[in-house]
Amino acid sequence: MRERVFIAVIGGARCSSQVCRLAEEVGAELAKRGAVLVCGGLGGVMEAACRGAKKMGGTTVGILPGGDGKAANPYVDIPIVTRLGYARNALVVQSAQAVIAVDGSYGTLSEIAFALQYGIPVVGLDTWSVAINGQSDQSIFAVGSPQEAVERAMAAAMARQEEEV
Amino acid sequence: MRERVFIAVIGGARCSSQVCRLAEEVGAELAKRGAVLVCGGLGGVMEAACRGAKKMGGTTVGILPGGDGKAANPYVDIPIVTRLGYARNALVVQSAQAVIAVDGSYGTLSEIAFALQYGIPVVGLDTWSVAINGQSDQSIFAVGSPQEAVERAMAAAMARQEEEV
Amino acid sequence: MRERVFIAVIGGARCSSQVCRLAEEVGAELAKRGAVLVCGGLGGVMEAACRGAKKMGGTTVGILPGGDGKAANPYVDIPIVTRLGYARNALVVQSAQAVIAVDGSYGTLSEIAFALQYGIPVVGLDTWSVAINGQSDQSIFAVGSPQEAVERAMAAAMARQEEEV
Amino acid sequence: MRERVFIAVIGGARCSSQVCRLAEEVGAELAKRGAVLVCGGLGGVMEAACRGAKKMGGTTVGILPGGDGKAANPYVDIPIVTRLGYARNALVVQSAQAVIAVDGSYGTLSEIAFALQYGIPVVGLDTWSVAINGQSDQSIFAVGSPQEAVERAMAAAMARQEEEV
Repeated sequence: MRERVFIAVIGGARCSSQVCRLAEEVGAELAKRGAVLVCGGLGGVMEAACRGAKKMGGTTVGILPGGDGKAANPYVDIPIVTRLGYARNALVVQSAQAVIAVDGSYGTLSEIAFALQYGIPVVGLDTWSVAINGQSDQSIFAVGSPQEAVERAMAAAMARQEEEV
Repeated sequence: MRERVFIAVIGGARCSSQVCRLAEEVGAELAKRGAVLVCGGLGGVMEAACRGAKKMGGTTVGILPGGDGKAANPYVDIPIVTRLGYARNALVVQSAQAVIAVDGSYGTLSEIAFALQYGIPVVGLDTWSVAINGQSDQSIFAVGSPQEAVERAMAAAMARQEEEV
Repeated sequence: MRERVFIAVIGGARCSSQVCRLAEEVGAELAKRGAVLVCGGLGGVMEAACRGAKKMGGTTVGILPGGDGKAANPYVDIPIVTRLGYARNALVVQSAQAVIAVDGSYGTLSEIAFALQYGIPVVGLDTWSVAINGQSDQSIFAVGSPQEAVERAMAAAMARQEEEV
Repeated sequence: MRERVFIAVIGGARCSSQVCRLAEEVGAELAKRGAVLVCGGLGGVMEAACRGAKKMGGTTVGILPGGDGKAANPYVDIPIVTRLGYARNALVVQSAQAVIAVDGSYGTLSEIAFALQYGIPVVGLDTWSVAINGQSDQSIFAVGSPQEAVERAMAAAMARQEEEV
């Protein structure tokens, strides 16, 4: 029953029209491929990605930081009410098999860090890059388009599922 | 889009065949009425309720205590991976507009307590009763059948939504 | 270094003068015996217990639900800022070797439930009693005075430590 | 009573002898200045920092990811048992007025991100640097020695306290 792939889309709660467009396309591409979109449930990149997914008939999950389910953006099908503040960022990435970061705030950076810590693949579109002690860390897979982001994330999620079998 | 009602079904991770039957009927009745079933995602009452919901074509959410989405019972559509241990009990009830307790362990008792603390209506089927300082607390609405449990919970959830409008 | 015993004192965020007096004595007795007092960090029973502990030179830890350390009552030495809402209730009892419940709200009931779920001994002073399916559950050890509460809790905590050795 | 400053020291659960030495000095310097050291309670940088603090008679708090208080390193005075997994990283930085990062893993990166998200000053010693969209982010204040790290962190914590008054 549950062969569906869950992919998290992370990014800031506000976005420029250009970033919003990227996020919306990411959501649409995920829905076209049958993936469930997991996100933080709020505005900006999260809302744009959910809107894209719903346009293509996809399913969207929003893991909210606060205590009010109605704070979810209108394109969230399944709002999860955590009251955990930003600690909920851990739940967003843990509940996915791969993560797509689009642009992003410090919250996005914490989600990238959590994903890398748990070994969940991260694909990045115009997002954070990090270096430790001056040495660049290449774990965030940089891509150039929403299509490429989704293809990469889906492939990484599948590879991970097979590994586990 | 999101007029769907979310109802949590809580109860122990193991159940007698009689309790399992009750839980399965609760799940089926919720699905018939279009409610999304939210639970802790594991076995026992949670699994029986999800099985009942899926038989009727419902949607099920499992908010898991551990770090492995595959620990969800096979009838969970949307597994949320929290790694929060039993602190995830708070999320199960917060994500619902009403709660149905079927039998239950201490975990169920903590979920009942969280729901009452947040003002979320609790309907009980053969479950905990509590008294403070020897004085019985009547906040858990006791019912006699799965049908009654679901009717009560749906009515309470609707009343709450209207209040908020 | 760390042979100190950690005991949680739980109860409502408001208390009658009589309940406050009980809580303050519990805190004082814990400090006299060298135990570290762990609590939810707010007012009512928590504040009274901390005040009692500080009068006797004890150490107090307050695990707060919100995001502001200054919300801690003035008798908390170590405020832990969780932003977890009531999910922090799980942390309060997990961080102790035994729990003393004084009177209490639904939050207290959730803490009692968590403690029982994790096998942490609970001593009760004028607090909740619970029954499952009409059958009384005797896991909350009822006592008649602050002294008895602290003696029982300390003994249970010690017995548990020895078991683990 | 509670004018004490709380400073978090973050870094990997393993460290080279050189990094450990830096962390130990950071802990010692914090204790000399009367600050309470908050950390994740485990080994590596956390243990070295706690050891340094205890040598100077300081107080140490360890906010643990797991369910066992005995997993704390032997220099932790106050172990907080969260069972939250890495979501506990949010609690470590929230409970401090400033953060000192020494070297570090992805967990450290998530803590830095949380701190920046909450506006808590971060001082870095041979640690992560981050860039968004190719643009370097200068929010992590890079220092060259444990003494400088502690001075900077203490000054930032004080400035923040005064702001709030």
